[in-house]
Amino acid sequence: MQTKTASTQVDVHDIIARRWSCRAFDASKPVSREQIIALLEAARWAPSCFGDEPWRFIVWDRNSDEAAWQKAFGCLGEWNQNWVKNAPVLLLSTAYSLFRKNGTPNRWGQHDTGAASENLCLQAVASGLMAHQMGGFDEEKTRLAFNIPKEFALMAMIAVGYQGEPEVLNDELKELELADRSRTLLGVHFFEGDWGVPVKG
Amino acid sequence: MQTKTASTQVDVHDIIARRWSCRAFDASKPVSREQIIALLEAARWAPSCFGDEPWRFIVWDRNSDEAAWQKAFGCLGEWNQNWVKNAPVLLLSTAYSLFRKNGTPNRWGQHDTGAASENLCLQAVASGLMAHQMGGFDEEKTRLAFNIPKEFALMAMIAVGYQGEPEVLNDELKELELADRSRTLLGVHFFEGDWGVPVKG
Repeated sequence: MQTKTASTQVDVHDIIARRWSCRAFDASKPVSREQIIALLEAARWAPSCFGDEPWRFIVWDRNSDEAAWQKAFGCLGEWNQNWVKNAPVLLLSTAYSLFRKNGTPNRWGQHDTGAASENLCLQAVASGLMAHQMGGFDEEKTRLAFNIPKEFALMAMIAVGYQGEPEVLNDELKELELADRSRTLLGVHFFEGDWGVPVKG
Repeated sequence: MQTKTASTQVDVHDIIARRWSCRAFDASKPVSREQIIALLEAARWAPSCFGDEPWRFIVWDRNSDEAAWQKAFGCLGEWNQNWVKNAPVLLLSTAYSLFRKNGTPNRWGQHDTGAASENLCLQAVASGLMAHQMGGFDEEKTRLAFNIPKEFALMAMIAVGYQGEPEVLNDELKELELADRSRTLLGVHFFEGDWGVPVKG
């Protein structure tokens, strides 16, 4: 199986370095209830503006409710269905656009939901699992299928499971699975002192 | 010093459980260059839609450039200045609203920036530091002071340093520092199978 540990100038924590978005999942290994709760607890304890916790997640566990999982799976784009078919757990992350406390717009709702989802993805690594977020799903179909109020932005579907062998993928996906991970050079997106000035390494 | 480990139904990873947004920082302990680079590398390796890496960060290290740090500090609200004065490092997170690859709107820009910032906050814990994100800063003043293009949304200022004793804070802030952390019950924001159905614990 591919490890793809992040290549960094200095060490970063193991669960951050080892997280990546694999597509090869092992369909034969269910995710336990304890693991699912750990993923959600990790998301729950993310930071948020004014402690508003603007995220809402739905989880579908194929091993406890196959029909509900299939309904969520049916909202994915065809490209994603090609590999998500092996992931035993699906989730949807959504972001409330208003503050709970007073109903005014919360401009950090999506930002804070991204933080909660990242906690979930890192907890997956800590629990021996992998998580892969996707923007490729039918938003309106998903909103209708699960009666999601219009004040919530649908952010990502998230596939979770044990990593599998690349051989479970078709040739096109397998090539992506085996390719190196990459990021732009540190100084391109990380500045020091002023906008556009590369951080000193 | 306060630890405030998250209270969870099942264990979550240590760096997730121990992350919280303290306000008491130790002004006498600088953050090393290696620690700063580790924070940025952690953010750099966050996941993003189409691998677009929509985040941009500026870092101000008081121990390498006092004037630049003061300029950033001057953009904070008075409430935050009361405690950020002890934090040796400040950062600003910003989110690009367009995809780099083709200039079309990226609706995940803020979400993915939130993920990168969460990686940074967790790496702070792993490096023996604490990080605290704030929405309380003057957006327009900050944009003008650092010439930030209009296509980038200013998300949060982030204070980083070694945790200090609550005694460095005024009475009002000290009370917050000593208070328990809390989150809404798991089933309120985490659903299973359908919207609004509490996850089974």
